[in-house]
Amino acid sequence: MSDNELRSLLTDQSEATPSGRIVRVLSERGPMSAREIGENTGLAKSTVSTALTELRRAGMVVDGVGDSRISGVGRPATTVSLNPQVGTCVGLLIGMEHMQLIVADVSHAVLAERTIYLDPDFSPEEAARTGARMLAEAYEEQHLSRDTLLGIGIALAGPVNPEDGRMLRAGGMPHWAGLDIRATFEPALQQTVIADNESNCSAVAEMMWGAAVGQDDFVLFTLDKGVGGAIVNNGRVIRGIAGGAGEFGHMSINPDGPLCRCGNRGCLEVYASLRQPLEYASKRFCRPVSIEDLVNMAKAGDPGCLRLVEDTAVAAGRGLALIGSALNPPLIVVGGRLALAGDLMMKPLEDSYDRHTLVRRADVSDAARTRFVVSRFLENDACMGAVGLVLRHFGRSDIRY
Amino acid sequence: MSDNELRSLLTDQSEATPSGRIVRVLSERGPMSAREIGENTGLAKSTVSTALTELRRAGMVVDGVGDSRISGVGRPATTVSLNPQVGTCVGLLIGMEHMQLIVADVSHAVLAERTIYLDPDFSPEEAARTGARMLAEAYEEQHLSRDTLLGIGIALAGPVNPEDGRMLRAGGMPHWAGLDIRATFEPALQQTVIADNESNCSAVAEMMWGAAVGQDDFVLFTLDKGVGGAIVNNGRVIRGIAGGAGEFGHMSINPDGPLCRCGNRGCLEVYASLRQPLEYASKRFCRPVSIEDLVNMAKAGDPGCLRLVEDTAVAAGRGLALIGSALNPPLIVVGGRLALAGDLMMKPLEDSYDRHTLVRRADVSDAARTRFVVSRFLENDACMGAVGLVLRHFGRSDIRY
Repeated sequence: MSDNELRSLLTDQSEATPSGRIVRVLSERGPMSAREIGENTGLAKSTVSTALTELRRAGMVVDGVGDSRISGVGRPATTVSLNPQVGTCVGLLIGMEHMQLIVADVSHAVLAERTIYLDPDFSPEEAARTGARMLAEAYEEQHLSRDTLLGIGIALAGPVNPEDGRMLRAGGMPHWAGLDIRATFEPALQQTVIADNESNCSAVAEMMWGAAVGQDDFVLFTLDKGVGGAIVNNGRVIRGIAGGAGEFGHMSINPDGPLCRCGNRGCLEVYASLRQPLEYASKRFCRPVSIEDLVNMAKAGDPGCLRLVEDTAVAAGRGLALIGSALNPPLIVVGGRLALAGDLMMKPLEDSYDRHTLVRRADVSDAARTRFVVSRFLENDACMGAVGLVLRHFGRSDIRY
Repeated sequence: MSDNELRSLLTDQSEATPSGRIVRVLSERGPMSAREIGENTGLAKSTVSTALTELRRAGMVVDGVGDSRISGVGRPATTVSLNPQVGTCVGLLIGMEHMQLIVADVSHAVLAERTIYLDPDFSPEEAARTGARMLAEAYEEQHLSRDTLLGIGIALAGPVNPEDGRMLRAGGMPHWAGLDIRATFEPALQQTVIADNESNCSAVAEMMWGAAVGQDDFVLFTLDKGVGGAIVNNGRVIRGIAGGAGEFGHMSINPDGPLCRCGNRGCLEVYASLRQPLEYASKRFCRPVSIEDLVNMAKAGDPGCLRLVEDTAVAAGRGLALIGSALNPPLIVVGGRLALAGDLMMKPLEDSYDRHTLVRRADVSDAARTRFVVSRFLENDACMGAVGLVLRHFGRSDIRY
């Protein structure tokens, strides 16, 4: 079996053989049982069985691999997955002050992960050079051949226009406005690049391997130094005509409120991000307080830190209630590092959501109730999601990724 | 050709013959060319051609019918549509103070339309009796056989739980909370009933025959005595886990604001519905002023009425901007009777939207810009959409309607 055979099954979109469809659905959705393969491909049980026998013989798929290799994601042992040895994918997060790189195999197991901190306002050229260096080092260190690399997903701290692949002015990286991501990164990385903003990537990670596995419809809501999120409908991230969907942090909830970094006033991010609470806490303790510090002190019972966490959660719940009245989603996955506080944050968030949204959870049956869960990937969600972009790019013929 | 043949092609979901697929796509999407049929069914050109020949011979489809029979909706003359003589569908709107019934054929032409006003707080039993009477009268008057009736769509002034088909407490008809719509109406109407809330129905009408034809993704935003809407993604209305999606009027934009009829404070509807402007205008002119009156006086240049329209549009635009930051939709269809004011309303609405949302239209290229249009059906949108529910119910095998 060669890498080229897998690549050909993944990329040859015109040929809808049962084998091709199975490989693509495993690439997109991760390990699953033969029954689930049938449900997801629409193929008859006997067809799935015959095709799996062929794919096993060709070494394309293996049984029971990938079950618990990513951060303890558990699946029953009767699953089939792509053979991890036939290809690797890279996720690259370009944040406002750091870059993170993950190398994973096609069964989604992480082979290497590294993070580099940069000066704020670093240039696209510097990011491309740094990314190429991180990539080369990771492959060398792991004794991996670059020939196995199927593609590179890039997660960015700002919206990417799906039409032309350029960064928008609006968002976390205004100095990259108008930048053509593929034109900038493909020459340096010498690979196909698929890019999206970090919250959309995080949603892909949660959908493929995290708290939203098996959920076709959910909202991701991230609370960190910024506020963001993503909307997933029918298994796809809603990107928006200009790539601006899911920008929950920039819903202007008080048009007379304080100025936001986006240029509008009273955005949710002004009230519900951790930027201001961290400033207060840093002043009070006369030292720089990180999100992790703040959460740990709240957990240890410090009344001031507890109140900062609660107040932020209440403000966030009020904003999330707007999303609730618009989407009434089955599931809300709460991510970002504030979610490290667990119930200390979730309880006031959910109460505040219920107080301000139309369909209160107490008014409907269990089956019709919006569920809240903490996201699985709190540390490397966007970068894992960038890996997912690559797999989904090959997995589905009808969408860009 | 018999009615039963069409019914069998529409309802036999297990058999995916080319003829069945063509009939279903025509039912769902309305008249289209052979090329469009190919695109929508995935069938080869020659297969479409052969199947159409058969369907024409069986009298199931006809050429060039239905082009301009609904409110002047124009399509090129080379379209194929279902033969209008093989079946009828009924749309029934149950509003807060009136009921409206439309009988249409499967080519979507309106055969009969009638409206009855009721006392507020009428009971479900009264609605069922009234609906049955309206239905019988319409069929008798038009000399139509009830045997042609394929199904009845019901549009309701409140959310319907898609899981169990019951009304929610939240919404315009709290005294109907928990009511099982099918159990209430099917015995009286002696037909299959498919129910949804009126804004979702309006979105279906706009998608099938109105301002959103050919658009798989858009937001409907209605401004009338209430404020409502719907979100369409990938050709489907997002209903929400409890049926509460699209309730834009009940986004609480000011938690310290005036009490709303839903029990929350400061909902968008308090600021952007026409209820308060109509009260002002009625006081000022010492007579009951309807929405149509207000709009006409604004158009005639009355400065007070003009200001009421503008201020309402500005408040509405501020609320819609929240949806914009969350969804960044390609298209926003503005409906409800305030839209009768045309540019007098659209200009301040669009300016206010742009001022308060993240991705301003001036910052992106034409292709990435959110478009605004007035809805096509301002008077009978929900009732036409209820007809659409029936056709979509038969047209698609993978969704409830």
